[in-house]
Amino acid sequence: MRFLDDQDPRGAEVMAALHPYTGGARVVGVTGTPGAGKSTLIDAIIAIWRQMGLRVGVVAVDPTSPFTGGAILGDRVRMQRHATDPGVFIRSLATRGRLGGLSASTGEVVQVLDAMGYQRILVETVGVGQDEVEVVSLADLVVVVVSPGQGDEVQAHKAGVLEIADLLVVNKADQVGAERTARDLCLAVEMAPAGARRPKVLRTTASVGAGVKEVVEEVEGLLSDMEVSGQRAASARARTQKMVVDMVMESLGERVRLLVERDQGVRDLLDKVHAREVAPRQAAAKLLSEIARDEAKATEGPAE
Amino acid sequence: MRFLDDQDPRGAEVMAALHPYTGGARVVGVTGTPGAGKSTLIDAIIAIWRQMGLRVGVVAVDPTSPFTGGAILGDRVRMQRHATDPGVFIRSLATRGRLGGLSASTGEVVQVLDAMGYQRILVETVGVGQDEVEVVSLADLVVVVVSPGQGDEVQAHKAGVLEIADLLVVNKADQVGAERTARDLCLAVEMAPAGARRPKVLRTTASVGAGVKEVVEEVEGLLSDMEVSGQRAASARARTQKMVVDMVMESLGERVRLLVERDQGVRDLLDKVHAREVAPRQAAAKLLSEIARDEAKATEGPAE
Repeated sequence: MRFLDDQDPRGAEVMAALHPYTGGARVVGVTGTPGAGKSTLIDAIIAIWRQMGLRVGVVAVDPTSPFTGGAILGDRVRMQRHATDPGVFIRSLATRGRLGGLSASTGEVVQVLDAMGYQRILVETVGVGQDEVEVVSLADLVVVVVSPGQGDEVQAHKAGVLEIADLLVVNKADQVGAERTARDLCLAVEMAPAGARRPKVLRTTASVGAGVKEVVEEVEGLLSDMEVSGQRAASARARTQKMVVDMVMESLGERVRLLVERDQGVRDLLDKVHAREVAPRQAAAKLLSEIARDEAKATEGPAE
Repeated sequence: MRFLDDQDPRGAEVMAALHPYTGGARVVGVTGTPGAGKSTLIDAIIAIWRQMGLRVGVVAVDPTSPFTGGAILGDRVRMQRHATDPGVFIRSLATRGRLGGLSASTGEVVQVLDAMGYQRILVETVGVGQDEVEVVSLADLVVVVVSPGQGDEVQAHKAGVLEIADLLVVNKADQVGAERTARDLCLAVEMAPAGARRPKVLRTTASVGAGVKEVVEEVEGLLSDMEVSGQRAASARARTQKMVVDMVMESLGERVRLLVERDQGVRDLLDKVHAREVAPRQAAAKLLSEIARDEAKATEGPAE
């Protein structure tokens, strides 16, 4: 079971059993470049939600160390003051570099927390790429955290950030350059093409809690709006679909991996590609038909 | 054809035709957090390789803006002094948020540049996650660039960085904190477990070219060592395998996408999952058997 980070066969059964109890949680993605202060901001958000009587789950995705598979606890210590609160569940996950790894395993943890009655679930990623996209697919809405003085690349990424953000937070607002970063983002939001979303730009100094209440208010307001407009139902449906597709792709990926590792015919074929005797695409086509035949054989009975 | 960023059907044919001419290039991945100065360092490395008479290709992977699909040119301007040099080819690619998107499309661009006779190919990513893993799978060796003062997260990521780096470069070595960052990295390298790779830690101030010659010498030395030890042949073989597997997975992903979009039975099934009547994993199993049957039908003729 992925939630337990191992291959426990009960996983699928447990997930199936939990499934009817899910759907109540609101999932908020928090992403941004390293050092933006995401964990500190999350810590402050948790405190406010707890004051509101909400149970809060946090899934912190550690994209690093894919080669050993271990989650790096790193800055999770910043959330430790909530560690003994039974109304708060915090878990770090390593993505392990798997295709679709983030969304498949994180999706399952979100499902479990949802079924357990956590009303707000924060999914934190250090996103500057693929991971950001995955968070979008998991969350009802996405908060992008930026901090001043993170170099030109933040500027270059502005377009990408605007596309996924439902709310922009300039953290470390007490630092030099914060005003300029906030102004730049506001300007970029104003200049976004017609029909594009226009996220608010809020300023926080999460380390002292400044501005965090406004962030929570905006998040809650957006969640209510989504409920009323039916957008939340649509995003929940899209999420269900993505979860199933991810499972299918992971399963297919495993088939391919096994074929490549164990099937002598496939290994010979790959050797020919390496020797420039067969083109990669020809080999890929051959592999596809192998998988289909194996899969068809394996599922002939139960299917229909 | 992905190289042209569109669906030109000649793509597969062109790639197949090029394939026999590939295998001569040395591929060097350059990764690191945003703002570390990767582009500036690459610009300086290009200059030295050009002095050595080597033709240089650069594939700069922009993981942002997956939703519009456009590559953000951003800091590529830093390499513009090489734009008119026919011995240098620079191309930006957007990953578009596809599963396996980075390695499949970047892999093809690398193949094309390789066939065209570029002797050194740099693959640049803004890596703090999945993308780093992909670069490792494409490159003969990986240079990780860090800069001082990128916050605690750089520290937290140190373990991940050490696992993929063949060479560590502390750029902006003239800045406050550079010495400490370099010392920290050296210490981490020393403390790495037995059998782990022990990358050198070099200091550069790429903006003025300082230390870049040493980086190129180390890279060339490592490439020679790999040649002698047979490690390069092994990594080329692994790359071939990954390229084929990526193609297979992309093709399967497209099948799944079409089924989910167009097959009414599948859409009904997903609705039942959304309504908590069917568990996600059951739906995934059903989808797998559908794909197998479709695929088996489609490939029945040509296969065998």
